[in-house]
Amino acid sequence: MSTKAVTPRVAFQGERGAFSEEAASQLFGAQLELVPCPTFESLFAAVTEARADCALAPIENSLAGSVHKVYDLLLTSALHISAEVIIPIQHYLIGCPGAVFAEIKTVASHPVALAQCERFFAAHPAIRRIVAEDTAGSVAHIINEGDRTRAAIAGRRAADIYGGTILRAHLEDHRENYTRFVLLTPVAAPSAEADKLSLVLQLPPESGALYRALAPFARRNIELLKIETRPVAGQPWQYHFFLDLQASAQAAEVMNALAELRQHVTEMRLLGCYPSARRGASRTHAGAQD
Amino acid sequence: MSTKAVTPRVAFQGERGAFSEEAASQLFGAQLELVPCPTFESLFAAVTEARADCALAPIENSLAGSVHKVYDLLLTSALHISAEVIIPIQHYLIGCPGAVFAEIKTVASHPVALAQCERFFAAHPAIRRIVAEDTAGSVAHIINEGDRTRAAIAGRRAADIYGGTILRAHLEDHRENYTRFVLLTPVAAPSAEADKLSLVLQLPPESGALYRALAPFARRNIELLKIETRPVAGQPWQYHFFLDLQASAQAAEVMNALAELRQHVTEMRLLGCYPSARRGASRTHAGAQD
Repeated sequence: MSTKAVTPRVAFQGERGAFSEEAASQLFGAQLELVPCPTFESLFAAVTEARADCALAPIENSLAGSVHKVYDLLLTSALHISAEVIIPIQHYLIGCPGAVFAEIKTVASHPVALAQCERFFAAHPAIRRIVAEDTAGSVAHIINEGDRTRAAIAGRRAADIYGGTILRAHLEDHRENYTRFVLLTPVAAPSAEADKLSLVLQLPPESGALYRALAPFARRNIELLKIETRPVAGQPWQYHFFLDLQASAQAAEVMNALAELRQHVTEMRLLGCYPSARRGASRTHAGAQD
Repeated sequence: MSTKAVTPRVAFQGERGAFSEEAASQLFGAQLELVPCPTFESLFAAVTEARADCALAPIENSLAGSVHKVYDLLLTSALHISAEVIIPIQHYLIGCPGAVFAEIKTVASHPVALAQCERFFAAHPAIRRIVAEDTAGSVAHIINEGDRTRAAIAGRRAADIYGGTILRAHLEDHRENYTRFVLLTPVAAPSAEADKLSLVLQLPPESGALYRALAPFARRNIELLKIETRPVAGQPWQYHFFLDLQASAQAAEVMNALAELRQHVTEMRLLGCYPSARRGASRTHAGAQD
């Protein structure tokens, strides 16, 4: 897509400098128009209402797990997953221009980011943590206020964009911290490199229903990469099952598996077939400890 | 347990009047000593540090889904699931003594509760919503402040405890709104009525691993009630699998299934075997819409 002459309008959730923006530039390079959206609902709406050509939604973090809201919106929207991208999450302590670490009294960030920096706060008990809506937004806020005793936790890009001072790098407790994003488009984008398949299904309320639904893939050695469940509204303790498979919908054996699967489900929808992002550690993190 | 002479000390997360407190009284009746805990971490610690005999942890809501933090703490703690209880979640608009609905300007509550009352806020656009830590705690707060233009959303019990005025009942968008709690104890409590089994396992990184792990149960018609995954810290895109099964660990066929399962997992731990709570609708909600 980066070879297109037309600059794509890419929606992301958060403010300028968010981790989602890093994911967008990894996927599209520098040639893109960013469309910031305050909420996940508005992120999906930006595409369905044609204010953006596509949206990048964080679907899973390797420590915090699945992003429930994004799964729920995938179910209700008609958008397609056309690509995925994985970025390392590296937390930086960012202060106002001229700030020095010894004078920092408070540190603001999104609750998930604060929770991923427990060791830093344990080592500096005098620093008070402040819950904020957003990582990059909290950097924008402290720099706007100009109080040099206040810092924020966000990605390096936020320091660049808002002109903040990096006071500490790698605040994250676990170096193996990645977020996986999916690229959502109004129409499916078939790709010759597609090797990953996402679908959502509902099963009959019978013993062995999930076992029978997995059989068509297991028998063909098609790997199940992830299974996620979300509740069915109005039907307590019934679930939508989201499956990610190492498979291309173009392959004959995968088409056969899907045809077989249809006999064991009450509902089913293909969410997308797309090239899988590199799994596991990025080069800068190879060999990093847990 | 309600027949015991000794009053059990039951830990719950939140302030007095929380939905967890309703779950505790449903399980134990009136004879109990409540131990309020501010966080889920402190809830688990209350039992491991013997400040409480047991803890009630909300593990799943029928609309919002699984409570990730509770799953993660189940994994790291050595506590056992000894019972479960399901309560209907009914949201009430609660004001100060003497408050009238027409004068309400703001409504505070926990973000999940606010999100479950979208229809109410859509019908009353002039009312501003305020995010708070807690449902019952927000009732305590507005009554303490005494401003009659401020209301909060919580369960009926919070109005009773803090002396609030109920301004509206059933603010929830979906009547079929339940939360399932698990009772956690330091030692397993074997019960003749146990018919539900919870366990957590890790699978080898092989194609068909989950399919093979489900086979011992599917072949014996042992129903899988729920599957949940949580990330393995430090091993991106690897998961712990939590299974709930309709089964008693005492039954010979279940013991055989578990023995067979052990051959297909890299790690496994039984979390508990306990009597299942009534599934689905409560009597007061039979026939409710959606």
